[in-house]
Amino acid sequence: MNNIVVIGGDGFCGWPTSLHLSRRGYDVTIVDNLSRRRIDDDLGAQSLTPITTIEDRITAWEEVSGRTIRFEMLDVAQEFDRLVSLLAELKPEAVVHFGEQRAAPYSMRGLTEKRYTVDNNINATHNLLAAIAGLDLDTHVVHLGTMGVYGYDGDGLEIPEGYQKVKVTGDDGTEFDREILYPTNPGSVYHMTKSMDQLLFQFYAKNDRMRITDLHQGIVWGTQTPETKLDERLINRFDYDGDYGTVLNRFLMQAAVGHPLTVHGTGGQTRAFIHIRDTVKCIQLAIENPPAHGDRVVIRNQMAETLRVRDLAELVANMTGVQVAYVNNPRNEAAENDLRVSNKSFRDLGLNPMTLQDGLLEETVEIAEKYSDRYVPQTVSAGSLWTKFQKPGVVSEVQRFHVPHRIAV
Amino acid sequence: MNNIVVIGGDGFCGWPTSLHLSRRGYDVTIVDNLSRRRIDDDLGAQSLTPITTIEDRITAWEEVSGRTIRFEMLDVAQEFDRLVSLLAELKPEAVVHFGEQRAAPYSMRGLTEKRYTVDNNINATHNLLAAIAGLDLDTHVVHLGTMGVYGYDGDGLEIPEGYQKVKVTGDDGTEFDREILYPTNPGSVYHMTKSMDQLLFQFYAKNDRMRITDLHQGIVWGTQTPETKLDERLINRFDYDGDYGTVLNRFLMQAAVGHPLTVHGTGGQTRAFIHIRDTVKCIQLAIENPPAHGDRVVIRNQMAETLRVRDLAELVANMTGVQVAYVNNPRNEAAENDLRVSNKSFRDLGLNPMTLQDGLLEETVEIAEKYSDRYVPQTVSAGSLWTKFQKPGVVSEVQRFHVPHRIAV
Ligand SMILES: NC(=O)c1ccc[n+]([C@@H]2O[C@H](COP(=O)([O-])OP(=O)(O)OC[C@H]3O[C@@H](n4cnc5c(N)ncnc54)[C@H](O)[C@@H]3O)[C@@H](O)[C@H]2O)c1
Ligand SMILES: NC(=O)c1ccc[n+]([C@@H]2O[C@H](COP(=O)([O-])OP(=O)(O)OC[C@H]3O[C@@H](n4cnc5c(N)ncnc54)[C@H](O)[C@@H]3O)[C@@H](O)[C@H]2O)c1
Repeated sequence: MNNIVVIGGDGFCGWPTSLHLSRRGYDVTIVDNLSRRRIDDDLGAQSLTPITTIEDRITAWEEVSGRTIRFEMLDVAQEFDRLVSLLAELKPEAVVHFGEQRAAPYSMRGLTEKRYTVDNNINATHNLLAAIAGLDLDTHVVHLGTMGVYGYDGDGLEIPEGYQKVKVTGDDGTEFDREILYPTNPGSVYHMTKSMDQLLFQFYAKNDRMRITDLHQGIVWGTQTPETKLDERLINRFDYDGDYGTVLNRFLMQAAVGHPLTVHGTGGQTRAFIHIRDTVKCIQLAIENPPAHGDRVVIRNQMAETLRVRDLAELVANMTGVQVAYVNNPRNEAAENDLRVSNKSFRDLGLNPMTLQDGLLEETVEIAEKYSDRYVPQTVSAGSLWTKFQKPGVVSEVQRFHVPHRIAV
Repeated sequence: MNNIVVIGGDGFCGWPTSLHLSRRGYDVTIVDNLSRRRIDDDLGAQSLTPITTIEDRITAWEEVSGRTIRFEMLDVAQEFDRLVSLLAELKPEAVVHFGEQRAAPYSMRGLTEKRYTVDNNINATHNLLAAIAGLDLDTHVVHLGTMGVYGYDGDGLEIPEGYQKVKVTGDDGTEFDREILYPTNPGSVYHMTKSMDQLLFQFYAKNDRMRITDLHQGIVWGTQTPETKLDERLINRFDYDGDYGTVLNRFLMQAAVGHPLTVHGTGGQTRAFIHIRDTVKCIQLAIENPPAHGDRVVIRNQMAETLRVRDLAELVANMTGVQVAYVNNPRNEAAENDLRVSNKSFRDLGLNPMTLQDGLLEETVEIAEKYSDRYVPQTVSAGSLWTKFQKPGVVSEVQRFHVPHRIAV
């Protein structure tokens, strides 16, 4: 009963989570179809840090820690029967589900990417739930959702942890109290799939009394955890391309090569952040504090702090000495938004997260500057969000995408 | 600009809708993969009425009306490129989207059916939206949703048309008014896909300013419309099997063969109903009253009346002289529920729907009794909702499904 399956365990969050759990005595099986690496190849992008193959990662971990991690190359959205066999064999205590296409800009590139994101993410999540229900396992599902499902057009009210208390008025004026799933307002196809996932979880928690935790995570920053630092072959990925790179990583790279930090508009959009070291701790806390059978889905906001993009730029600028350049915002988004988010649930479990103020220097020196010779400047302008829609026999059409949030995840 | 595409136009609602629109001058193209007929074959079930092939139907219609309906055998969930070509060619004014797996009990049979329902319904809907967005068409999407997304554990409050007014309280006690998508509480995998569809519509209406109408339909009863009566080859389907048959159709068949009507528990569950003749009128009204660009999704409740199952049984019993037998309820559902539903939107557009009281006799005589020699008694007990989960190399497991609503759709 100490088996943990980490779907998407080769990814940015999944790899350090796997090591963290392995080190703490869990028997970890990584399930991944390596689609993220294939997408990098397709995009001509690569991690700034020199990540090794999954096989080399696992060998290195065995050498360093004496602990074994099993790897199954498996597409959760496509290979249902293999997923079922694996779960039947392992009967895992928990499955941590990171296995989705997770970049908002990528999900808005064009029709192929939109359709892939919906098909992959919905079927991955549903296959997992159907398999656990079908096998009648007692497995706890820990899923990575995103703060982005809440939408960012905040009204100043604090964003609760998944459920919103509301009052509904009857015909005769009587008020009724309700607690509902927070009404989502996703800004990309990617975020939309996470909203849809919530309905899958709601149903399986109710119908099959499945134990499900959905973690609404902020933007994860930082690269290394204590485990990934133990050997360079264990290094985690650092994405900075226009699709998978977060705004912070792009600032860090601009600073590392001496460019001014480009802030769109006033940089007034607020986002939530958490360091990868705290992500892995949160996952462990979530695993160790499962809901009871019959409980509704437990939703926890997994984030440490919120910051405006311009404050983030100023932070990086102060640390590195580069300038901040304010340029026009090509995107269709609110110039300024406020974001107040409750993270009481993890704080109550003892989380004491690191802040950008504290950890950013290490990230600058040990990652962005150290590997800056691997930096490939990539031009990613808003223009890439116009997609040529072409097929034989059809007059080519141009489609305009409105991407409210270019900040990934 | 008079082209209408009817996805699922060979189905129970889609076929009479296609004829209704064709007769009124629209150029109708039916898109259907005939999956519904295949499912009948798989289940060993068949329509009580002798439906003809889609080719014969279309030929008969041409003979009777002088009007042509085009048919494209096409899987909307699977054959995206063909869908795109067709839409690019037709540039339809509206697409009426009936093309989903629509039986709640079928969607709960087992893992294959659950997975098929999610994969088929979500990809069908998303492919349609992505294609229209990608081609930058001005097509109005008219989708058939279900009353079932609201959930049936009503609290006595009237169910509004898709959006719920609520009050949210800020930290300082200030109250804010919001209007949100009605928080859904689907009771089957099928209903869950319709809840998920709502999020797809919300996103594409917002992001692509697509014009979308979502019709939350009650249980459709009745078989014939003025058009399907014109020639026996045009006859519509009448399902009475345990998966696709509604509670009313099963009562009608029991009455036709002189069996007592079996009501589970107290028969206190309330459901919403609409006659197929009104369904086709509603679709036309929806097409002719599209939202504006940039509007949120227009949601209309498409139903005429609500009735308790026992009252429905009494109605059939009074009309036919058979008895009502109350038996234990094997299902996990509230014994009594109330259901008050607003249908103001269609009433304001002039709908004056037929009631069960008025139309049930015709249905009894002209369908249930007339075709009773084609009746095949099928045993569908609650036991069929326990599914054997078996695969090579995996110890077989038994899964319990809680199906709160065995009443289809
Ligand atoms: N990185 C962030 O800032 C962030 C923030 C909020 C939420 N999240 C969520 O956390 C999860 C992990 O994010 P990440 O940054 O590690 O992404 P990632 O792309 O680096 O990792 C995802 C992994 O899942 C795998 N995968 C995708 N589809 C799969 C399938 N069908 N079968 C098997 N494996 C599959 C990929 O190959 C990849 O290794 C995602 O669901 C994401 O939405 C991430
Ligand atoms: N019948 C009812 O009482 C009722 C009530 C509420 C809502 N609805 C909704 O109305 C719609 C039509 O219902 P119906 O009773 O006519 O169902 P039906 O099963 O008779 O018709 C659906 C049609 O869609 C086709 N189809 C399914 N998947 C397809 C795909 N991927 N590509 C192309 N065609 C596909 C089927 O072959 C079938 O002909 C459904 O979406 C249903 O959810 C029906």
